[in-house]
Amino acid sequence: MEKVIQIALLGAGTVGSGVVKVLEMNRRQITERVGAPIQLKTVLVRTLGKARPELASYQVTDKIEDILNDEEIDVVVELMGGIHPAREYMLRAMEAGKSVVTANKDVVAQFGKDMFDMAERQDVDFLFEASVGGGIPIITPLKQCLTANKVTEIMGIVNGTTNYMLTKMTECGSDYNTVLKEAQEKGYAEANPSADVDGLDAARKAAILASLAFNTRVELKDVSVEGITKITPADIDYAKNLGYVIKLLAVGKDSPEHGVDVRVHPVFLPEDHPLASVNGVFNAIFVRGNAIGEAMFYGQGAGSLPTASAVVSDIIDVSRDILHHTFGRVRCTCYEKKKLCPLKETESSYYVRLLVDDKPGVLGFVATAFGDAGVSLKSVIQTQRNIIEHAEIVAITHMVRHEQMEQALDVLNGLPVVDEIRSVIRVEKERG
Amino acid sequence: MEKVIQIALLGAGTVGSGVVKVLEMNRRQITERVGAPIQLKTVLVRTLGKARPELASYQVTDKIEDILNDEEIDVVVELMGGIHPAREYMLRAMEAGKSVVTANKDVVAQFGKDMFDMAERQDVDFLFEASVGGGIPIITPLKQCLTANKVTEIMGIVNGTTNYMLTKMTECGSDYNTVLKEAQEKGYAEANPSADVDGLDAARKAAILASLAFNTRVELKDVSVEGITKITPADIDYAKNLGYVIKLLAVGKDSPEHGVDVRVHPVFLPEDHPLASVNGVFNAIFVRGNAIGEAMFYGQGAGSLPTASAVVSDIIDVSRDILHHTFGRVRCTCYEKKKLCPLKETESSYYVRLLVDDKPGVLGFVATAFGDAGVSLKSVIQTQRNIIEHAEIVAITHMVRHEQMEQALDVLNGLPVVDEIRSVIRVEKERG
Repeated sequence: MEKVIQIALLGAGTVGSGVVKVLEMNRRQITERVGAPIQLKTVLVRTLGKARPELASYQVTDKIEDILNDEEIDVVVELMGGIHPAREYMLRAMEAGKSVVTANKDVVAQFGKDMFDMAERQDVDFLFEASVGGGIPIITPLKQCLTANKVTEIMGIVNGTTNYMLTKMTECGSDYNTVLKEAQEKGYAEANPSADVDGLDAARKAAILASLAFNTRVELKDVSVEGITKITPADIDYAKNLGYVIKLLAVGKDSPEHGVDVRVHPVFLPEDHPLASVNGVFNAIFVRGNAIGEAMFYGQGAGSLPTASAVVSDIIDVSRDILHHTFGRVRCTCYEKKKLCPLKETESSYYVRLLVDDKPGVLGFVATAFGDAGVSLKSVIQTQRNIIEHAEIVAITHMVRHEQMEQALDVLNGLPVVDEIRSVIRVEKERG
Repeated sequence: MEKVIQIALLGAGTVGSGVVKVLEMNRRQITERVGAPIQLKTVLVRTLGKARPELASYQVTDKIEDILNDEEIDVVVELMGGIHPAREYMLRAMEAGKSVVTANKDVVAQFGKDMFDMAERQDVDFLFEASVGGGIPIITPLKQCLTANKVTEIMGIVNGTTNYMLTKMTECGSDYNTVLKEAQEKGYAEANPSADVDGLDAARKAAILASLAFNTRVELKDVSVEGITKITPADIDYAKNLGYVIKLLAVGKDSPEHGVDVRVHPVFLPEDHPLASVNGVFNAIFVRGNAIGEAMFYGQGAGSLPTASAVVSDIIDVSRDILHHTFGRVRCTCYEKKKLCPLKETESSYYVRLLVDDKPGVLGFVATAFGDAGVSLKSVIQTQRNIIEHAEIVAITHMVRHEQMEQALDVLNGLPVVDEIRSVIRVEKERG
């Protein structure tokens, strides 16, 4: 009899129902491409009894043992999210000899190593394309298509909520609270938006991307994180006038001098950068490698069907491995223990916006203070944005170490003519 | 003793020397990722005796038999280009039990089926990521990462020469001959530029992409082709004013009603389309799938190291298969025989530019003629571009079948007030 690949889903929420739909609507094509049918057998749900017409053809259970002890099930697809009990279920599934596909960025970012080790020990697959960038292929490209490269830089717009909000702020001039409310009404932001707007969601994805790109283990705690809550319409406006857009980026850099530097923060991005035109809920990941040069991967970073696209493609990949009795062809190596670059040693250009007294000589004072602190300026402008008796000074620095920048800010803070340091945002240097 | 993967290169030109360089500069990483060293053993060159310091550590031969009869060689990497003898050498290599990696779009577009059949028969790999889009991962994404999708549309900027020329025409207002000369001086265009500017290079890539995306065999002869030689600064200018940019696109569409429709031609692309900002020698491929929605892959479509990035990543992939004794995990299926949509049945919007007599009522005549031929207009404008006693009429149509458009053009041609049909260019409809 021909082999049938049997799978179980853990979770029947947004992504889970997308996976069911994709498996059904593209059934014939998937069978042809795998060389065998993929059969969804069992779905784990939190509470039985809820009406779920879309799952009528499948076994539904609230007991993980029904899946772990079912010897027919080849692949467990984890779509519950969160650390517990997702992590334990995945480990137990692999212990039971089943391959695992997941969209769980939390577990991969925090416990990826345990997962990879277990997969290797048990000779099964552990795939997680959907954990970063929704449907966008980026994990497989890093493990396969770009693997001839030493990746030196990876930069991603990997959080749709904040990208939607920053796009709206740029297009409509609205302030942070207005766009947050709008995003919540549209269902793009949670009632408690912290994980998105404070950058934690992006930081998890940054840790995953950097680990793969640089072959080293980067954990969530290694990522320095800053969200978008302090971005104002004034900053958006200055950026526009200076030829930039403001984006929340996950940034990873690897260099022999500085080591591996991974962070999430808003950034001034030159408006001709490929990432600058990635708007709304779209995501994109930009990669620089020592052979390919620049490459970018663009698409929908969330949503039921786009995420299901990545999950089902992983299921197809596992199924091909099952049929060919081969696992671990492409391991997540992370075999190097690279030095992590401490935040104070990272280098950037900066945009600095100051509220100052509106009197002659202030610009000179400020420029001298930067210079004395060893921070050289690329440009500095003084403007009066309808502020009584005050003016604003906007400076763009050349590349400077983070600790040096902090020193300069300390000095500026002590100047009597400087009333407030209003914004400090990193600037991604011009391309080329 | 540990297995060493031994490879041979056919051709030591631009891409060949890039492959040698990438294998050398990233040697340690490649070994770690494969799990075994990859050793370049032999290089086939056309004529011996030329000084080739970069090949000093390798065997150099001008006899293909030295490679085909060498049982130590696992993988043959074909980088000679052209059909003969590349095709024969690849078939003979597979007959000898060796896997093949190639960057040869001509052979894949025209003889792909023979290659896939031979690979299947001999149980070896035949990989060709570099044949489309240089370093950009697009073949592997189509075969793996997007494989859960029914792809309905694929559109690519896949020829760097013409994209460089159109970008220059757009940025500088120069005419076709001026930018061609400039492209030739910079080495971006050949002395005989026909394959690029007439769209043949893009057509080969369109055939490859469509075959993979739609699971059906599309050959070069099935692709309708139009180049960029007729594009004028006036067209570029009108496009800009109407909110479009002109790009040479490889377009593939698949729908149950019309079948598979594959073409290469200039197109008016809305300026907010992700492909619209792909400029200069960069390439990008845009894919629409029934799960992922929109996705795009961007990078350098040519050049020594970018192309070598794709070739070496394929070599790594084959090496992993060799070590795991598994081939044909991911076959190029092309298992369907889909109906091809004849050109006359294809549907598009069109931009039409006419030289007309400058007298009252002409706009009405022209609009009526379109209407009588069953072509409804989205917009029509009349302008005087410093043309004595003449005016220009620019019309954008709604969606219309190609044959209907041809009828309308026949009617317009017969109108006494119409002096010349100056341009007819397809319009890609607004997104969403």
